Amino acid sequence: MASMTHSSLPLVFLCSLFCVIFSSFCYCKSLSSVTIDSLRASLEKQEDFIVFSLIERARYPYNSFAYDPSFLGNQNCSFVELFVRETEAMEARFGRYQNPEELPFFPDYAQPPLAPPHRFPNILHPPGASVNVSRRIWDMYFNDLLPLFTKKADDRNYQQTVASDLICLQALSRRIHSGRFVAEIKFRDSPQNYIPAIQAKDSETLMKLLTFTSVEEAVVKRVFKKAEIFGQNVNLGKNNVKEAESKYKVEPSVAAKLYQEWVIPFTKQVEVGYLLRRLI
Amino acid sequence: MASMTHSSLPLVFLCSLFCVIFSSFCYCKSLSSVTIDSLRASLEKQEDFIVFSLIERARYPYNSFAYDPSFLGNQNCSFVELFVRETEAMEARFGRYQNPEELPFFPDYAQPPLAPPHRFPNILHPPGASVNVSRRIWDMYFNDLLPLFTKKADDRNYQQTVASDLICLQALSRRIHSGRFVAEIKFRDSPQNYIPAIQAKDSETLMKLLTFTSVEEAVVKRVFKKAEIFGQNVNLGKNNVKEAESKYKVEPSVAAKLYQEWVIPFTKQVEVGYLLRRLI
Repeated sequence: MASMTHSSLPLVFLCSLFCVIFSSFCYCKSLSSVTIDSLRASLEKQEDFIVFSLIERARYPYNSFAYDPSFLGNQNCSFVELFVRETEAMEARFGRYQNPEELPFFPDYAQPPLAPPHRFPNILHPPGASVNVSRRIWDMYFNDLLPLFTKKADDRNYQQTVASDLICLQALSRRIHSGRFVAEIKFRDSPQNYIPAIQAKDSETLMKLLTFTSVEEAVVKRVFKKAEIFGQNVNLGKNNVKEAESKYKVEPSVAAKLYQEWVIPFTKQVEVGYLLRRLI
Repeated sequence: MASMTHSSLPLVFLCSLFCVIFSSFCYCKSLSSVTIDSLRASLEKQEDFIVFSLIERARYPYNSFAYDPSFLGNQNCSFVELFVRETEAMEARFGRYQNPEELPFFPDYAQPPLAPPHRFPNILHPPGASVNVSRRIWDMYFNDLLPLFTKKADDRNYQQTVASDLICLQALSRRIHSGRFVAEIKFRDSPQNYIPAIQAKDSETLMKLLTFTSVEEAVVKRVFKKAEIFGQNVNLGKNNVKEAESKYKVEPSVAAKLYQEWVIPFTKQVEVGYLLRRLI
């Protein structure tokens, strides 16, 4: 912003606005059916599945051999990486990544989809659609999160373990990369709020514009509560969390930390990354 | 039983008992660590994952093309069958079916496991280990259960849909085929209760011996409650099912029906099938 004169701002703004309006007609689907409220409702539902997926993974102990690159001997990668690569390649053949909400961790597969191709509605501005923090999600999940909610033990169920890991990773990736859709809707609702910072490539201002502390705190509290409710041991005659006196399958504080330290910040980084490409 | 004289019964009984005691020493692991209580606790946990898996599947509509054999054109089977076949073949390579608790729906894969082989503890009497009702689970799931808890619609997310189906199927298969382990423990706890009916190949009497109506009713009630708790829409400030006034993600009555009409009867059929092979 500092490099532009005040007099040039309205012209640039108008041009940008024209681009926005024109490009709106080029997308596959109008935004009429997608609102920030419908998107928030979808994100809330995704919280449930993220909590479920953590609980499912917690059925198995840490199982360190699954993450040890030397375990497979003649392979160049760990058991989990090989499993995720092969699973994603297969899922791609079955059409998973035709849906723009799904992003693979290893997109270097070659085979075309088996099923008739389908063009999913896609509201994303094409340059922003490629914003991707999969590597960061992968590292966070294995280095930071997994040791927090799994027992240090080995039960040799490595396939079941890494299949559960992949379900967690996919749920987290879908939620975090939803930031692209959130950013698009926010931008379309009030482009004038974002265009100056986008043009100035001012990530810090964009991050501030996208931060709503009270909303984020409410999300973290709700995730904590979901982990309490979904992770309790249900017994007949005991009606709710308080009465059940149960040990949770995943500590609610871990689920809350996941959202507070990683899911929310990563999502906002995706939103910023998307907006920075919004006028390209 | 009718074909045997009363005088020959004690001798046959003693021989059978000797076989039981001898074969106990041949198994890979003693039963000391597995009791009917530890097995019940595991079955209770499996209820949680079955309810979670139904809720996850309910995210997607019915998506009928995934089950229509004509959808893939030049393939001889439906999208879901091809997906399950290929997934199971891959999971087998990653060692899933080395664990005797896991049974594939299509066991005709050929590739050997990638990982170093592991001999899981196996308490099953070998002839009974092959008792398998996978086909019945498959038919029940697709013909009876799925239409009860999915919306009649199509969102084209076929890969995600059938991946959720497979998670449901695997959870149900594991639970139902646990009947083999339950039958083994019950038999070992009091072989004298079962041997006469086994020798007489009297399925009806075995079914009666394995039926505990009050326990089954409690399981169905607990599953209903789990579907209420896990399928509710959690909001901040609302503490339990009654207050939340939510529409459930899967009707609790469907989860209860699943257990009452299929999971419990199928498990008992597995138990009977196992016991009938227990003295071979």
